[in-house]
Amino acid sequence: MAADSLRDRLAQLNADYARAIDDDRLEAWPGFFDDPCLYKITSADNHAQGMPAGLVYADSRGMLADRVAALREATIYERQRYRHLVGLPCVLGEQAGVASVETPFLVMRIMRDGTMDAFACGRYLDKVAAVQDGLRFRERIVVCDSARVDTLIAIPL
Amino acid sequence: MAADSLRDRLAQLNADYARAIDDDRLEAWPGFFDDPCLYKITSADNHAQGMPAGLVYADSRGMLADRVAALREATIYERQRYRHLVGLPCVLGEQAGVASVETPFLVMRIMRDGTMDAFACGRYLDKVAAVQDGLRFRERIVVCDSARVDTLIAIPL
Amino acid sequence: MAADSLRDRLAQLNADYARAIDDDRLEAWPGFFDDPCLYKITSADNHAQGMPAGLVYADSRGMLADRVAALREATIYERQRYRHLVGLPCVLGEQAGVASVETPFLVMRIMRDGTMDAFACGRYLDKVAAVQDGLRFRERIVVCDSARVDTLIAIPL
Repeated sequence: MAADSLRDRLAQLNADYARAIDDDRLEAWPGFFDDPCLYKITSADNHAQGMPAGLVYADSRGMLADRVAALREATIYERQRYRHLVGLPCVLGEQAGVASVETPFLVMRIMRDGTMDAFACGRYLDKVAAVQDGLRFRERIVVCDSARVDTLIAIPL
Repeated sequence: MAADSLRDRLAQLNADYARAIDDDRLEAWPGFFDDPCLYKITSADNHAQGMPAGLVYADSRGMLADRVAALREATIYERQRYRHLVGLPCVLGEQAGVASVETPFLVMRIMRDGTMDAFACGRYLDKVAAVQDGLRFRERIVVCDSARVDTLIAIPL
Repeated sequence: MAADSLRDRLAQLNADYARAIDDDRLEAWPGFFDDPCLYKITSADNHAQGMPAGLVYADSRGMLADRVAALREATIYERQRYRHLVGLPCVLGEQAGVASVETPFLVMRIMRDGTMDAFACGRYLDKVAAVQDGLRFRERIVVCDSARVDTLIAIPL
């Protein structure tokens, strides 16, 4: 592992992250973050205008875990599937062991009747820290291209 | 080539595999597999319930070649195009030179009139063996997210 | 950077290229090319039939810059967003420091009202040259799978 390039390790981190969500192992999701951390979902317009609050906001693993618990308890949670396609990461810089990375993504949604549609696309703005056993997100700001974000709170992105 | 990481070599294998199919060079497709091998297309529901038979099943290169021959002979074979977008591989483990890998995919379909739609998405569950001149699939189980799989038999995935 | 594999460097080049377009920093786009260069957008049918002229043709950075200027001046330029998902590159060969690479892509379009659709998919046929400060496209032929290409002139692909 030590011999792997940063790009290889980022690819593995993103692949594992997407797989946990798509496998509906949401309880594993907070473990991809540092503690404290910053996780936000926002829209491109809001992000460009520097608006502080996103659709979803969490600054600790505990808050991420609370969010998963809330999703689990919600009785209206429809059993659609999701499939993340994570694109090529742009490594923008690295400082004191923390890499700044921007990565595009596309999430497909598969309804119970089999229909598929594009659920969300956009980019991850990440600060990724190297820790003893791998990489963790210190920040993951999810900037969705679409302004229609009301349904985005269904799952982590 | 020897200096490339496993991740690099998996990326090349997946890229070559997808390109052969999307270029309609289906006769090259069995060559990506070991012999004997296991190739299956199934749905996520069937896979989760441990149902043994998938939509498509082959356990040798000969069976894969037969399938290609059948596709070529089928008179109703519409000339739509396909485009694979293969995501980031999750390397789950490696034992005795065989890597277990899970990789998400999205296949777009382009009809003769130019309309595009998402044809299939899901994940590849692979056992990949290193052989003299590269990597081969010992197993490739194609788990489609959608339960609407009746049309999936059109091409290899 | 020198220690990175060709595949890593190609990934970074493609990621930076897509990001410049999706961020609407079109003025940076010609800088990804060598000068002189070859940039074409064509359809799979036209390409297969060896038809010489594509939808878009440029053979110098100046022509690429002119194209960007024309896009900026066009008053009907709708403010939709685009999101490139660039797939795994197939490295087909390398000669005298120039790599031949084929890479699939999918471009999503996000309209002002939030609707998303697949705008284009296809493959990049590239000749990539190593220069002092990185990699540049000596050739990028964009082969779109769809024959409905009339709207493809909106942005660089």
